[in-house]
Amino acid sequence: MFKIQKRIKTVPFLPEIKKILPLEQVIKIKFKNKNLLLQSLIHRSFLNEHPRFIVSHNERLEFLGDAVLELIVTKYLFNNFPNPEGELTVFRSSLVNAKTLSKVASEIKLDHYLFLSKGETGSTGKSKEIILADAFEALIGAIYLDQGFEVAEKFIHRILLTQLSFIVKNQLYKDPKSELQEIAQGKLKITPNYKVIEEIGPAHAKIFTVGVFFTTEMIATGKGQSKQEAEVDAAQNALKKGFDKK
Amino acid sequence: MFKIQKRIKTVPFLPEIKKILPLEQVIKIKFKNKNLLLQSLIHRSFLNEHPRFIVSHNERLEFLGDAVLELIVTKYLFNNFPNPEGELTVFRSSLVNAKTLSKVASEIKLDHYLFLSKGETGSTGKSKEIILADAFEALIGAIYLDQGFEVAEKFIHRILLTQLSFIVKNQLYKDPKSELQEIAQGKLKITPNYKVIEEIGPAHAKIFTVGVFFTTEMIATGKGQSKQEAEVDAAQNALKKGFDKK
Repeated sequence: MFKIQKRIKTVPFLPEIKKILPLEQVIKIKFKNKNLLLQSLIHRSFLNEHPRFIVSHNERLEFLGDAVLELIVTKYLFNNFPNPEGELTVFRSSLVNAKTLSKVASEIKLDHYLFLSKGETGSTGKSKEIILADAFEALIGAIYLDQGFEVAEKFIHRILLTQLSFIVKNQLYKDPKSELQEIAQGKLKITPNYKVIEEIGPAHAKIFTVGVFFTTEMIATGKGQSKQEAEVDAAQNALKKGFDKK
Repeated sequence: MFKIQKRIKTVPFLPEIKKILPLEQVIKIKFKNKNLLLQSLIHRSFLNEHPRFIVSHNERLEFLGDAVLELIVTKYLFNNFPNPEGELTVFRSSLVNAKTLSKVASEIKLDHYLFLSKGETGSTGKSKEIILADAFEALIGAIYLDQGFEVAEKFIHRILLTQLSFIVKNQLYKDPKSELQEIAQGKLKITPNYKVIEEIGPAHAKIFTVGVFFTTEMIATGKGQSKQEAEVDAAQNALKKGFDKK
């Protein structure tokens, strides 16, 4: 008789892993490969201070997790809301921007488990928000690799998408033009203005390109099949660039 | 004995479906719900001329397909290339931009099967490129809904990702800064210049925001952990906005 033995991948058990295990309880997911969970929590700045650390930083996982999150949220919106594409895009951006993601990341106490440089540990505001949102996306990437799409999907449903019906029902998302105006007026005492900078295509099926300006400075452009659509797209691009995650 | 009968969903068989069936042979996918395939091929302009047509246009499918495509390409790059996130992003944008997608769409003769308004049928250049790329994404959305992720993934591997090794090996992708410079010089006789417009965070872990300018006009901004990274991001955003699919 042959004895069948499972091949066990040799994963060195790093002391840092002990520190992050409580996070598994919070997110209710038990990783097969704990190093993936650890990697999702390592900010680039930590490796500057610990150049010999054997696990890499979380940026590649973030690249993957961002796309996983995008599909999960997109699929959910497509299946649950009959709205046209443009509105679904607004709903989606109300969920996957750095502000919302960092808020959700704080709720699962991700900030307690991050590995940062000493300098970065004390960071606040926008800089902290981006670090947290990126780590959250990296965590989704790690869950996807270790557990598959369905587990990642259930996780996102549980902690992010439950909020959406409430947001939509109460119109807590803002349309991009109002949001941009509010920020521009609050921070800069400026009202954004929009100008058509290009029209292409035949009369009944034009594509408009619109620029959004703060006084004379063009902040972003947008495209659409009507002026209004192009303006919303431009406002959205301005928000993405200036006040939001890149 | 009970006779078990399958429940058959009532899908009206539209005459338009007959026209598009040869496409199934080309893409080697047989749809269970032919109306999904049909919907992916219907441009908004067609419904302007046929307001009573019972199938909707392809924009919601495009919204879904875009995210499916993004994950398929991202996963492939993550699994097959050890490069840092920034380079993977460049590879990805060389694959999922309107130019490449419309090229692939033409290879499977998608343009023969599109339902467009009479005016739009004769469209050329950028306008046609965008219609084709959007329909291609809608087709991926339809395949995903009808057949699942794995079938969509195999399809993309077969017709899009096979080209990537060749592109990367021969450096046929361009870095965004060179590409922007080439276009700006060709079209406008202008050399883009870059200026740091913000630095936040502690000295060892700054986040730079850089603006890319055509003479004095700011075209786009970008963020990164070094000036170089932020410049590449800015060039990428400029390309996305001005010369590429929105």
